[in-house]
Amino acid sequence: MGMLGHAQLERVEPLNWWVGFNNPQLQLLVKHPNISEAMPSILYKGVTVKKVHKADSPNYLFIDLEIDKTTKAGTFDIVFKFKNGNEIKQPYQFKARPKSAENYVGFNSSDAIYLITPDRFANGDASNDVNQDLLEKTIDRTNDYARHGGDIKGITNHLNYIEDLGFTAIWPCPLLTNDMPQSSYHGYAMTDFYEIDPRFGTLTEYIELSHAAQKKGIKLIMDQVANHCGLEHWWMKDLPFKDWVNYQKNYEDNKANWNDKVTITSNHRRTTNQDRYASKNDHEEMVNGWFVPGMPDLNQRNPFMAKYIIQNSIWWIEIAGLGGIRQDTYPYPDKDFMSQWAGAIMNEYPKFSIVGEEWSTNPLLIGYWQKDANNKDGYQSNLKSPMDFAMQNQIVNGLNERESWDTGLVKMYDGLANDFHYTAPKDIMIFPDNHDMSRIFTQLKEDVVNTKMALAYILTLPRIPQIYYGTEILMNDTAKPGDHGLIRTDFPGGWEGDDANAFTGEGLNEAQKDMQSFVKKVLNYRKTSKAIHEGKTIHFAPKEGVYVLFRMAENETVVHIINKNETPIKLDLKRFEEVGLGGKMVKNIISSEQFIWEDSIAINSKGSILLTTKK
Amino acid sequence: MGMLGHAQLERVEPLNWWVGFNNPQLQLLVKHPNISEAMPSILYKGVTVKKVHKADSPNYLFIDLEIDKTTKAGTFDIVFKFKNGNEIKQPYQFKARPKSAENYVGFNSSDAIYLITPDRFANGDASNDVNQDLLEKTIDRTNDYARHGGDIKGITNHLNYIEDLGFTAIWPCPLLTNDMPQSSYHGYAMTDFYEIDPRFGTLTEYIELSHAAQKKGIKLIMDQVANHCGLEHWWMKDLPFKDWVNYQKNYEDNKANWNDKVTITSNHRRTTNQDRYASKNDHEEMVNGWFVPGMPDLNQRNPFMAKYIIQNSIWWIEIAGLGGIRQDTYPYPDKDFMSQWAGAIMNEYPKFSIVGEEWSTNPLLIGYWQKDANNKDGYQSNLKSPMDFAMQNQIVNGLNERESWDTGLVKMYDGLANDFHYTAPKDIMIFPDNHDMSRIFTQLKEDVVNTKMALAYILTLPRIPQIYYGTEILMNDTAKPGDHGLIRTDFPGGWEGDDANAFTGEGLNEAQKDMQSFVKKVLNYRKTSKAIHEGKTIHFAPKEGVYVLFRMAENETVVHIINKNETPIKLDLKRFEEVGLGGKMVKNIISSEQFIWEDSIAINSKGSILLTTKK
Repeated sequence: MGMLGHAQLERVEPLNWWVGFNNPQLQLLVKHPNISEAMPSILYKGVTVKKVHKADSPNYLFIDLEIDKTTKAGTFDIVFKFKNGNEIKQPYQFKARPKSAENYVGFNSSDAIYLITPDRFANGDASNDVNQDLLEKTIDRTNDYARHGGDIKGITNHLNYIEDLGFTAIWPCPLLTNDMPQSSYHGYAMTDFYEIDPRFGTLTEYIELSHAAQKKGIKLIMDQVANHCGLEHWWMKDLPFKDWVNYQKNYEDNKANWNDKVTITSNHRRTTNQDRYASKNDHEEMVNGWFVPGMPDLNQRNPFMAKYIIQNSIWWIEIAGLGGIRQDTYPYPDKDFMSQWAGAIMNEYPKFSIVGEEWSTNPLLIGYWQKDANNKDGYQSNLKSPMDFAMQNQIVNGLNERESWDTGLVKMYDGLANDFHYTAPKDIMIFPDNHDMSRIFTQLKEDVVNTKMALAYILTLPRIPQIYYGTEILMNDTAKPGDHGLIRTDFPGGWEGDDANAFTGEGLNEAQKDMQSFVKKVLNYRKTSKAIHEGKTIHFAPKEGVYVLFRMAENETVVHIINKNETPIKLDLKRFEEVGLGGKMVKNIISSEQFIWEDSIAINSKGSILLTTKK
Repeated sequence: MGMLGHAQLERVEPLNWWVGFNNPQLQLLVKHPNISEAMPSILYKGVTVKKVHKADSPNYLFIDLEIDKTTKAGTFDIVFKFKNGNEIKQPYQFKARPKSAENYVGFNSSDAIYLITPDRFANGDASNDVNQDLLEKTIDRTNDYARHGGDIKGITNHLNYIEDLGFTAIWPCPLLTNDMPQSSYHGYAMTDFYEIDPRFGTLTEYIELSHAAQKKGIKLIMDQVANHCGLEHWWMKDLPFKDWVNYQKNYEDNKANWNDKVTITSNHRRTTNQDRYASKNDHEEMVNGWFVPGMPDLNQRNPFMAKYIIQNSIWWIEIAGLGGIRQDTYPYPDKDFMSQWAGAIMNEYPKFSIVGEEWSTNPLLIGYWQKDANNKDGYQSNLKSPMDFAMQNQIVNGLNERESWDTGLVKMYDGLANDFHYTAPKDIMIFPDNHDMSRIFTQLKEDVVNTKMALAYILTLPRIPQIYYGTEILMNDTAKPGDHGLIRTDFPGGWEGDDANAFTGEGLNEAQKDMQSFVKKVLNYRKTSKAIHEGKTIHFAPKEGVYVLFRMAENETVVHIINKNETPIKLDLKRFEEVGLGGKMVKNIISSEQFIWEDSIAINSKGSILLTTKK
């Protein structure tokens, strides 16, 4: 386990470290029977043991190291001396950093992110499907909630497909070990924060995925969870401190008969983070309650836990050369800790990106969490990218509703108008759906044209777009809308013998092929579009079923016309005069058709029209 | 007309002025045939004619005066000399200010405002019901859109009733002349900004109302309109400038056949005021388009118009000793002008209050308009009180919806949680309904208990509450929900011979009497409640159909328990421990019942429970 293995001690974490960070401090967690009776020492130039902390359990030590700027990479021993004279020598490695901090460039509005549920995308290595050392011992593709065998290799094998589609970043759902007795496929109940789940592959394979992606200009985003772990996390059997997890006493008193009734779960009243009238009681229940009974809530107010989580994040960025972190359940951990966590990362990687999940359709909450928000309570999150559940909701409503003065496309227009509230709208992540939400094709009642409108809109907004695997082939959960297992259906072609193969197009129906080609065209245009990445935005209030959005850079204007009229219309262009397109040649990004922008455009049917002034 | 009359000239406005304002400038509008050919002069100590402006019409002059600090009150002549040697002497008066600027104290969270549609409240003077000099010549109480005869005297006569109920401010809808051919009763199509509509009474009666109210501790709020006038406004026949109203050329070209089709009306896309992506075209159509075809849109970017409106507002504050202004259609005039307007008023009356109508359920817009909002575009409104259409909507939804994790009372809880966004929540006006909106009893499906919950909630919030006349006797528009004429039904007892009389209680049914008594008890408690006026707020997320709100001042805690359970429950009080009520005596504000706040409270039926620790 880990790069150095645990030659003599049960665990030393982080598994290794690097020289050359801004922060000269490192805190090692050491776990070993009765290790608290030993005194550690290090003889390595530039490294000082500043302090040794005992925990409540005798089987832990926390060691504070100070690493001098001059310290060189290398391996050394940590020597643990017991009172009885016994000694344990634990080798530990400081690596040289492979690249400079400036070169860890996170995702941004020039990227498009492909979100993948790894167990359900492609099975690249059938040999790792089942692992008898772990609690969930089977795969069963007929069961939506069982493991299906998808893995890291499956993603690496299909990077070409992802690149061709035009994506420039991937966000696989968590790949760390979830040694849980059931539903371990989703990855959010981690039982080891330093280990790739063997059923997904190895650390080496993860690093290979990152490097292979990087070569194609694709950033790897890691899905991390600071709020909770899985109930089977190794430390749950021997918790270092009395307050390592929240409501720990309740857990310890009841663990023999642990169930939904004895768990104190979160009230999920996330507004208590902002609400100036929230009761202490509600707020405490919100942040300290367990997310679900199978996920112990980590206590980030314990300073050792706080350091543990921060160092873990940095370890993964550095070891895998990450291009971003997606942080789960953002409003649930202690919010001051989250600020400290994001701040610590950005301090080491100034160009890095983190996106945090706050599932709220309220722009006030989205804005609150974004870096540099001028919050009245003074809160500074250090978080570059919140998620835009508000806009997602407006898009779905806007497309599903019939047109009227205050229904239909105006929902999208009004939603986007709320951008005046945000510090940096283009750093916010937008998505048609994700792994926790009904598929967009289902949300839009299996209307292909509306689905194209949603995607084209999302891909032309001043945002960072994220699209869930399979949306390009109209994957749906219409049979049982919202069912998590069904949402995360296997990607066709990811398994040997699949009837259809979305990677090759074999066995896809015409609508699926058409959507795949549509997404590919839009994404590949977007890839080099300065207008979309960082252009000025002008939109015109929906009128007679037509909503028009312009994105404008110096030498490029992109026009997105969303037309809901089923019968032919003539769109008068006089209203758009201020945009200055008169007399210019524009090209349809999908059909490549060209025409001069003059008095009006004849539009024959409902749909998105994407135009550009680029040749 | 006016205090001085127009002895020689058609019009001089403002009708008079005062000495002792902070702003030493005054601009007179003078209207008279060919007055632009005359040169005005003034011989009065401390008064200088700084500049004389000709307009586009020869029949106007605008005269800039500078009034020295030492200028004394008095009457003087403005002498207009024509080239042919003719002279007109126009007397003009500078009055002494009746009280110091500090003594114009506007409404605030210690007040409760009674909103009145004057034509529909009480007919105090039958002799003014019909006026043959005006275009709408009849009254007809069987027609919801005709005049019914209510007037200023009707309000003055019933101040005792209003005082008894516990209100401390009244907001009558506009009382200025609306010489329009139809629907003139509502008052929002003003045809003279300096004249009380003769069918409502006289300026003297208006001043009497203000003084009589003041004696009872009731503030008079004037409903003003800076955005538009009525199509029959006197200046529409001879507009001083080519740009006095917006889309003026369109009006002048088409006025012979003026109708809905030739009018350029506002697109009502109010978000264009904030939206960083709004097109210029949409924004212009929003602010310049006419509100409706019968209401010319005033061009506040014309500096003479701007001064005219500001001076008009100040004139009314000073002449009537107002306790506040309610400004109609706040986002429709030029927003920079509105900031200047509110700033000019607050500069003269530092303790004054203005509430602006932005009909939006989006807290981002509400927050934007409030004074000292930290808007990203730098906009500073100078407006103390926006209106809370957002919270109104949450309350109605919260009470109408069945209880679940994210429906029902949680809508109220979440709505109030949004207060973290506002600069000063307690300066925001909240209301169950108003003159443009379905009656609260109708909105709540004629559920009396829910109506009480709405009212009690509104009256305990950190807000300025406003209640529409008749809500206390369950007036409704259920027969035709939302019908403006019906919403503004006659108050029973306001007319001689009415079947019922809400002032005396005669002919009211039990439910009406009970609601009247409920409102009276809550309002009269509220009157002296520091906890409600300015106390700290703590609320607890709804749980099992119960939502609890605490308002706390030093020696007083008010508890509002909103219980939706139809069957008896026992409310565990442990959860509220942090509020520190344990062992204290509390009294039910409605029933006067007392008990000790201990482990739990038994609640037998659905409803509001209002408790206080005050003896």
